[in-house]
Parts: sequence; C-alpha cells; structure tokens
Amino acid sequence: SRSINLAVIPGDGIGQEVVAEGLKVLSAVLPQDVKLETEEYDFGARRYHATGETLTDADLDALKRHDAILLGAIGDPSVPSGVLERGFLLKLRFAFDHHVNLRPSKLLPGVATPLAGEPEIDFVVVREGTEGPYTGNGGTIRKGTEHEVATEVSVNTAFGVERVVRDAFARAQARPRKKLALIHKNNVLTFAGHLWTNIFNQVAEEFPEVTTEYMHVDAATIYLVTQPERFDVIVTDNLFGDIVTDLAAAVSGGIGVAASGNINPAGDFPSMFEPVHGSAPDIAGQGKADPTATVLSVALLLRHLGYEAEAARIDDAVAADLSERTGKPARSTSEIGDALAVRVAG
Amino acid sequence: SRSINLAVIPGDGIGQEVVAEGLKVLSAVLPQDVKLETEEYDFGARRYHATGETLTDADLDALKRHDAILLGAIGDPSVPSGVLERGFLLKLRFAFDHHVNLRPSKLLPGVATPLAGEPEIDFVVVREGTEGPYTGNGGTIRKGTEHEVATEVSVNTAFGVERVVRDAFARAQARPRKKLALIHKNNVLTFAGHLWTNIFNQVAEEFPEVTTEYMHVDAATIYLVTQPERFDVIVTDNLFGDIVTDLAAAVSGGIGVAASGNINPAGDFPSMFEPVHGSAPDIAGQGKADPTATVLSVALLLRHLGYEAEAARIDDAVAADLSERTGKPARSTSEIGDALAVRVAG
Ligand SMILES: CC(C)[C@H](C(=O)O)[C@@H](O)C(=O)O
Ligand SMILES: CC(C)[C@H](C(=O)O)[C@@H](O)C(=O)O
Repeated sequence: SRSINLAVIPGDGIGQEVVAEGLKVLSAVLPQDVKLETEEYDFGARRYHATGETLTDADLDALKRHDAILLGAIGDPSVPSGVLERGFLLKLRFAFDHHVNLRPSKLLPGVATPLAGEPEIDFVVVREGTEGPYTGNGGTIRKGTEHEVATEVSVNTAFGVERVVRDAFARAQARPRKKLALIHKNNVLTFAGHLWTNIFNQVAEEFPEVTTEYMHVDAATIYLVTQPERFDVIVTDNLFGDIVTDLAAAVSGGIGVAASGNINPAGDFPSMFEPVHGSAPDIAGQGKADPTATVLSVALLLRHLGYEAEAARIDDAVAADLSERTGKPARSTSEIGDALAVRVAG
Repeated sequence: SRSINLAVIPGDGIGQEVVAEGLKVLSAVLPQDVKLETEEYDFGARRYHATGETLTDADLDALKRHDAILLGAIGDPSVPSGVLERGFLLKLRFAFDHHVNLRPSKLLPGVATPLAGEPEIDFVVVREGTEGPYTGNGGTIRKGTEHEVATEVSVNTAFGVERVVRDAFARAQARPRKKLALIHKNNVLTFAGHLWTNIFNQVAEEFPEVTTEYMHVDAATIYLVTQPERFDVIVTDNLFGDIVTDLAAAVSGGIGVAASGNINPAGDFPSMFEPVHGSAPDIAGQGKADPTATVLSVALLLRHLGYEAEAARIDDAVAADLSERTGKPARSTSEIGDALAVRVAG
C-alpha cells in the first residue's frame, strides 16, 4: 500500500493558519489506500528566540527522512533581516540541493489582476535555486566606517546552470506551446551571462521543437505587464527569478494564489513546497489569510510525488472556488480550506 | 552672454531620428541670448565595425570639454551582446562618474498604462550608477567546458552609497510628499544590504521631515503594479535600479516617454541625458520612433544646467501633446518633434 511521509513546517505568522488548510485539503483528496503520515517541525522565529537555532545538522537529518516538506512561511520582524532567510530558508534550499525552484503563474477566470484588459496568463518560471547571488559569497571590510566596502559574489557553474536549463527545456517540450525564454542580463553581467546563454543555446539544439528567446531582465519586466501571454516557460537565475516571480504573481492574481516548489528532481533529498507569500505578521492569527497559495503548493507536492490525478483535482477545485468569489463576502482562512476540501472530496 | 556647449551622440538605430527631434525642441525653447553649440560624435555599431573602437581615451578627452551630453541610443544586433554596453555606455558612466542615474516616472493625462483603473503615478528613481554588479568585476574559469565557473562581483562602498542616498534624500525633501523608499534585497544580499540599509538609516536622521520605508526588490515589483501611487522618491542600487526603472517606465506610459539623466552632481564631468529605450533596430529609419523620451531627456538636461523655466516649458509641451493624442492618427518622429517645437516656442 502507498504512503506519504510528510514533514510539515508551519513556521511564523500566517504560516500556521495556511498550512492547516493545506493539510485539510491534502487529507481530503488522497485516496483511502494512501497512508498519510505527517510530522510537524517548529522552525522559525519562536525557535530562534528560544534557542538561537535556525536549522541544525540534526534538523536536516530528521527532515531528510521524509518524502517531501510542506512549509507555510518563515520570517518575523522581531528577527534581524537575513537571519532566518539565510539561516533557515536558504540553508535548507542549499542543503537539500533544491535547484529547481518552480513557480507557475496562471490567471484563473474570475481572479482580479492589476492589468487592464483581459490578459491570458499561463506560464511557469524555472528559477535556479542553489547558485547565483544567493550563495552568501562576499563580505565586508571596514564595517561601519566611511571606508566600508561590501561585496556580493554571484557564483555560476556549468553544472548548476545546465541542469536547470535542461529541466526547463523538458517542461517546455511537454507543454502545448513549447516556448522557452531565458531571462538574464548578459549585456552587463557578461561572465555569468555568457555561461547562461551558451549553455541555453547548446541545450536548445537537443530540443528542436522548442521555440526559444532571450530577454534581458529589465525588458522582461516590461513584457510581464504589457504582453504576459507571450510567456510559456521561463528559465532564469536565482535573483532574477526571485524578482520576476513576484511580479508574475502580482499580475496573475496576487501572492494569495502563488504556489512554489523547491525541487530536487533526482530525489536525493526531499523537495519542499511553499506559498510564495511570506508570514504577513500584520494579519497573522486573525483568520484573514488566503490559504489558496498553500493549497496549490500541495498540488505541486502531489504532482511531484506522482499523484497527478489528485493534483489535478486540487487545481480544478481552486479554479472553481476562485471563479465563484466575485461579489461574495470574504471568507475566513478555514472557510476557504473547508470549501476546497469539500470540492476535492466530492 | 550664456552658452551651452553640447556633445551629441545620436548612436545606433532610432537614436539618430530621436536626437534630431530633441535638438529641434532644444533650439526652439532656448532664449535668443543663449548660444547653443553642438558637436556630433559618431559612436556605436558603425564606428565599432569600422575601427574596432568603442570609446577611446581621446574620445573621453573630447567629450569632457562639453557642458553636457545628449545621447540617442547605442546598440545593434550585429555587435555581440555586451561589447557596446560595457565598452561604451558603462565605460562612459564610470569614466565620468555618473553616480546619480535619475529616472522620473509620471503617468500623464491621456497616456495609456497597462494597469487597470486610473493609477496616479509620479515618482522618481535615483539609481546608483557606478557600483554594484555593474563594475565588471568577476571572471570565468574553464570557459566552454562542463567545469566552467563564472562569477560576478557586486562592489559597494560607503562612499558610493552615501552620495546617492544623500542625493535621494535631498530630492525627497524638495518634493511635496517628502517620501523616500530604499529598494534592496537585504535579507539575502546581507553584506551589501546592510551597508545600504545602515547608511540609509544614518542619513535619514539628518532629514527628519522625510518619511522613509524599506522594501525588498521583489516586493517592490508587486507594489509598482498594485500601488504605484505609493512611491515618491526611490533610491536603489545599479542593478535593482535597472530593473525597477524599466518596470516603472512600462506602467507609466511605456519607454516611449521615459527619460533619464546620468548625472555627476558635482560637475567634475559633463552629465549625460538619454531616453531609457534602446536603439530599436526593427523600426529604425522609418520615422516611427516616438521622440518624446528624448525630448523629456532634454528637459532633464536643461534643468541640470539651470534652465528651469525652459525645462518646465518642455514638460508642459509634452504633457499637452500627450493629452491630445488619443484617437488621432499616429504621427511620424519628425511630426511629433515639430509639434513639440511649436509648443515650446509659442
Ligand atoms: C525570503 C527570501 C529568502 C526568498 C528568496 O529571496 O528566495 C523569497 O523572497 C522567495 O522568493 O522565496
Ligand atoms: C544597455 C544597458 C547597459 C543599460 C543598463 O543596464 O544600465 C540599460 O538597460 C539602461 O537601463 O540604461
């Protein structure tokens, strides 16, 4: 009989609330014969304040034994900027080699967008997750003086770039439109830019059916608001991916519905799924958070583990739920979760 | 009697066409007693193909003798990516210490925006122009092999950050709303991020009337499309500034109307003014390019040289011209230039 052994990290702020709904929908969608085991981990601001720890080797060993990880949100204003980001979120992505950071953007019927007209938005960003300016490479000299110099080093390897570029080509090949855009800034960041561009062009030869284009990151932000229908699959580096996926989320319904997966495609380590939004401490504990992004992240998780039919049921339930929202009074976090659980079960 | 000794760099593609209109409007707006001298320089793709040169020491010496520089656009698909960008555009910004890259965004009445509703957009970005990931620092080893490693080093100095932060605070202080936002990614790029954030907070103490906020660059892209009215002055690093100003241009009427100044506030070197758009080779030579961004760059140039009344006349002429465009047939590059020249003279 089948089973899913899931690590659950509710985290800070609204993380607790949205993860509860994600699990509710997960339980409702799974067939009877699939045994769901969950283990909850207390990471984030509370643990940091209590122990000074963010993510220890023992924590990593424990997390490693799960099939996948569901995360709510990590981060709190009481913790200095960077401590939990570098000490937990990025540490985990790097430790578990989550090199494919997958972020779909689909504007569903009935969902509001800040863009005029009725743009058709349905693309997915493959963001590199373990290199680029995110390596923590760099340093500071003469800190706090008028002679301070601070550096950040973007590290890019052929190995690291090729594997996400290949992943992106494979995803583009599997989609009806078969289009792939590389986003970089190869006219200024010429060292990293040439590495990305050369590998992209090389791998392209193995995928003759995929239509490719290259775009500078600055120009990409323009297209994302003027011609978002232009995009099918996007592949890009860690920092550019961070920026364009927030913009992509904004134009395709907001971060309330933006899901993401931090994926280790080879399965050497468990992959992690999380909403793109943060812990939103301003609305935490009030039942106001929209759990949809977490529920959609559960769909990505299921798809990653091979439960395609169940993932599709969640996607359909979310689409149906969103299409009926206009004009109705706002529901609480758990009301939305309940409604989605009913839909996926039905 | 007064005089302006201007270096003119039409450059590639539509650069030639739009600069001609910029000069037309400049001549029309200047009072009789101001002597305008212009010297044209042939930089860009043509010169590069003919001589292999992009910008020599002798060129820099010649340019240095002018009061200011007006640039159209540099770049052509026949030249490998990066050659003209690094060899001309960035070389000039660095050589002339253009550390304040000023990019206003104002959505004028009658101008189309991709955003729904009727957002009020009127802010200015102060982008650092001589540091960050633009220094060309970095390198490649094992190029072209599967073991290639390419790095890009973002270099940030207290000296370099403080001067643009001060410039931005002074601009915020002089505007009615007196708001300043720092955009960075200090939760990930912690070395550079802390330098920027600390200096920003220190300088803030000298400007108690200015309301400040900090925003991660990813979140900033969301606000730029959902709440652009939130912004008054933005200060940010070279790369983040490149990205957010293209997005800002897109939401506030498109790059057809986005002007910029590469400013050396101390006046040690001539400042350079240019439209944000590129050379657009696809429409070059057809009289289709909108010269408005160049004309608005001429206004920035005049303001920089102390001709405030003339700059304001150009701004007003552009606003009037734009407000009357809806529903009218498209005009050619020179027709728009003629119309603006008539307005500023009248
Ligand atoms: C919180 C932060 C470290 C993170 C990132 O920059 O990757 C977030 O913005 C994201 O996009 O997941
Ligand atoms: C052409 C390029 C070097 C330049 C930049 O990145 O600064 C351009 O995008 C700009 O914004 O002026």
